Amino acid sequence: MGIEIERKFLVVSDEWKRLAEPVFMRQGYICSLPGRVVRVRIEADSAMLTMKGKSSGISRGEWEYAIPLMDAEELLRNLCEQPLIEKKRYRIAIDGLVWEVDEFLGDNAGLIIAEVELLSEEQSVILPNWVGEEVSHDHRYANANLFKHPYTRW
Amino acid sequence: MGIEIERKFLVVSDEWKRLAEPVFMRQGYICSLPGRVVRVRIEADSAMLTMKGKSSGISRGEWEYAIPLMDAEELLRNLCEQPLIEKKRYRIAIDGLVWEVDEFLGDNAGLIIAEVELLSEEQSVILPNWVGEEVSHDHRYANANLFKHPYTRW
Repeated sequence: MGIEIERKFLVVSDEWKRLAEPVFMRQGYICSLPGRVVRVRIEADSAMLTMKGKSSGISRGEWEYAIPLMDAEELLRNLCEQPLIEKKRYRIAIDGLVWEVDEFLGDNAGLIIAEVELLSEEQSVILPNWVGEEVSHDHRYANANLFKHPYTRW
Repeated sequence: MGIEIERKFLVVSDEWKRLAEPVFMRQGYICSLPGRVVRVRIEADSAMLTMKGKSSGISRGEWEYAIPLMDAEELLRNLCEQPLIEKKRYRIAIDGLVWEVDEFLGDNAGLIIAEVELLSEEQSVILPNWVGEEVSHDHRYANANLFKHPYTRW
């Protein structure tokens, strides 16, 4: 088991956009209960199957496995709740941290979330000037929620 | 994706028991909806993560991955619905087919199910004399149902 410790923010400007080339991601959920998530994700030519457990603060157990791309396509089509989440992810390294900025597409177009993964809950973070309000504890911004309650219908 | 084509029967005697040595299995479900199953199974020292899709007759899409034993222990404890299913499985080769006889334990003690996996829905099967009523289409006997409605409480 890995422990995912993650803080999540809205952004306040487009400055992040020139800092990285995006990759396209498509993902869906076989299970999207709060303490029991099974996610299938395709990024470029590779695919992952990820399980996430109960959150405790900003930490969460995570189990992740690479799976064949064709399996992922089948699972997204046959087992995942619809619609799928589509987004462009920009990975931006700043001050020893990697910021992942997700620009959502489709029903979530207009939503942009910046995430940073930490080694401990107490780790201090220097916020880039394009980072705004923290939404780590706002369940509406969970990807497993966004396909059910997409941003354009908030 | 593999296709699982499987027929399932009750047994009418104990004759199968002397035909194989059992292995002990422990399994649980992260998701147990009819068309969307995510199962974690430990058999001896190895562990599998299995996804199953919608049934069509006795056929069903199946995606299966070996995972580390320790991950499986964590997933069974933290993400799977409780209680887990525990059973002894006897694998018996007869006439070119492998019969799997599951002797359930715990809350399902007393239940014994014989399964045979086929290459096509039309494949003919010679039933051993210890095989009784077919229950392929009886959802009560699905493992994903047995932990919720265990046999001893039927």
